Amino acid sequence: MSSPTLPAELSAFLKDSSQRVESRIRDTLTESIPGANKLFEAMRYAALGPGKRLRPALVYACAQVFRGVDFDPARCDASAAALECIHAYSLVHDDLPAMDDDDLRRGRPTCHIAYNEATAILAGDALQTQAFELLLADNTEPALKLLLIAELSKASGSRGMVAGQAIDLDSVDKTLTLAQLEAMHRLKTGALIRASARMGALHGGATSDQLEALTLYAEAIGLAFQVQDDILDVTVDTAILGKTQGADALLNKPTYVSLLGLKGAKEKLQGLRGEALSALSTLPGDTLLLKQLADYIVQRGH
Amino acid sequence: MSSPTLPAELSAFLKDSSQRVESRIRDTLTESIPGANKLFEAMRYAALGPGKRLRPALVYACAQVFRGVDFDPARCDASAAALECIHAYSLVHDDLPAMDDDDLRRGRPTCHIAYNEATAILAGDALQTQAFELLLADNTEPALKLLLIAELSKASGSRGMVAGQAIDLDSVDKTLTLAQLEAMHRLKTGALIRASARMGALHGGATSDQLEALTLYAEAIGLAFQVQDDILDVTVDTAILGKTQGADALLNKPTYVSLLGLKGAKEKLQGLRGEALSALSTLPGDTLLLKQLADYIVQRGH
Repeated sequence: MSSPTLPAELSAFLKDSSQRVESRIRDTLTESIPGANKLFEAMRYAALGPGKRLRPALVYACAQVFRGVDFDPARCDASAAALECIHAYSLVHDDLPAMDDDDLRRGRPTCHIAYNEATAILAGDALQTQAFELLLADNTEPALKLLLIAELSKASGSRGMVAGQAIDLDSVDKTLTLAQLEAMHRLKTGALIRASARMGALHGGATSDQLEALTLYAEAIGLAFQVQDDILDVTVDTAILGKTQGADALLNKPTYVSLLGLKGAKEKLQGLRGEALSALSTLPGDTLLLKQLADYIVQRGH
Repeated sequence: MSSPTLPAELSAFLKDSSQRVESRIRDTLTESIPGANKLFEAMRYAALGPGKRLRPALVYACAQVFRGVDFDPARCDASAAALECIHAYSLVHDDLPAMDDDDLRRGRPTCHIAYNEATAILAGDALQTQAFELLLADNTEPALKLLLIAELSKASGSRGMVAGQAIDLDSVDKTLTLAQLEAMHRLKTGALIRASARMGALHGGATSDQLEALTLYAEAIGLAFQVQDDILDVTVDTAILGKTQGADALLNKPTYVSLLGLKGAKEKLQGLRGEALSALSTLPGDTLLLKQLADYIVQRGH
C-alpha cells in the first residue's frame, strides 16, 4: 500500500526494514517439527504475508535516532520480528468468524479461510509465544532483554491490545463517545505501536525523557493510523483497500468518521500529525525518517 | 477429583499449593480496566475454576526437594500462576467449537458457553500474555527470571504444547502408532508438566543432573496422566468425570486404550509410575511428596 509521495529515503528504509524482519521471522519458522507442518505453514502465511511492517520500521527508526545511521540494525531484528508476530497473531484471531468474521485481509484469504479455523486459532496462539521466544533467544544483554519482554507483554495483554479488542467487540451497535473510541484505539492498535517505538528507543539507549518523547510520538501516529483507517474505510474501493470497504460501518461500529464526519476526521488526523512532529522536535539526532513515517501514515492509501 | 487413598501430607500440600496459586492469579486479575470487565471476568472464570492445579503443585514440590520444607514457597508463586494461566488458556481454546467443541469442563460450562466465543478467544489470548507478565513482575533475580521465561515459552509454543494440539487435531479419523501418539502427548500435555518440574527445580537451585532427573520424572508422570485420562474416559461416568464420557472415542481420536486395550493401558501406566519413581531415586532431599504425586496421578479418579 505505497503512496505516490513516499520519499526515497523512507522508501529504501521501509524496504530494508521489511526484508530484515521477514528474514528473521522466516528463519525462526522454517524448521517445523514432525506432524506440525500445517501449523508452521499457517504461522508463516500469517506472519509473512503482504503488510506494511510498520511496527518493525518503528523499532529500527527509533533506535537509529540515538545511535546514528551506523547503528547495526541487526540488534533490533528480534524485537522487530517479535512485534510483527504479535501483530500477525492479533490479525489472525481478529479475523475469525466469532470475531470480525473477515474472509479477506490485504487482498488474500484470511488465515482461517486459507487453512481452517482450528489451525488459525493455534497459529495465532503459537505466534504469540513465538514473539517471546524471539526476544529470549536473542543475545541482547539480560537487563535490556527483560525490559523489552516487559514492554511487549504489557502492550499485548489484558491491559493492552487484547483489552482494546474486547472493548471494540462490545462496541458493536453501541454509541461510543469520542473519548471512549480513542481509549479503545489507544489499546487495540496504539499499545503495540507505542511498544514498537519504546523498544526501538531502548535499543538506542534513549534517556527517560527521550523515551517519553518517542512514546508521545508513537501515541499520536498510532491514533493517526486508526483515523486514516476509518477515512480509507469510507473513501476507497475494496479492490484497492485489500479488505471489505465500509466493513466497520456494516458492523455498526463507531468510527472517527461516524463521530466527527469526514471533514472532522481529516482535521483530527492533521492535529495528530502536529502532535507527533512536535514530540520529535525535542529529540537530538536525525529524526527525518520518523517525520516521514508520520507523514506516510497520514497520507497512505491516497 | 480427590482420591480416597490421598495421603494426608499430599492432601495438605495440594490444598496449600492451590490456595497459593489461586490467590496470586486472583490478585493479578482483580483490577480490570474500563470497558474490559467481561474479558477479565472470563479470564478469572477460566483460570480460577475448579481444577487439580497439578502444574503449580509440581513447581512447589520440585523446589522444596532441594531447599527443604523451610523453603519459602512465595518465591514460586509467580511461576506456579504463570503455568496455570498457560494451562487455562490452552483449555479455553481447546474447548472452542472449531477445536474440540466441548460444552462442559470440570462440571461447568466451558468459557465460550458461559460467555461467548469471541470473549473466550480473547480471554485465552490474554491469559497467555498474563503468564509472561506474571514472571516478569516477580522479584526473581534477572538470570533466573530469564531461565523461567525461556522454559515457559519453549514449552508453550509451536515446538511444545501448541504443536501437540495441532497434531492432535490432525489425528481425528487417523491411525496413529503408539510412538506417534506418545510424541503428540509429550507435546500437548507433557511439555507444560515438564516445564513445571523444571521451573520448580530452577527455583530450588538444582544442579544440571538433578534438573535432568526431575525432567525424566515429569516426562513419565506427564504421560501417565494422559494414559490415566484415556482409561478414565472409558471407565467412568460423565457425571463423575465432569466432562463428556467417551468423548475421544466419539471423535475417533486414537487413545492408549484404543491402541493397547484397557489392560495394556493399565500396564503402561504402571510402567510409567516405575520410571517416575526410578528417576526420583537419584535425587537427594525429601522426595516423598513427588512420589505421592506420581501415585496420585496413577490412581486419581478411582
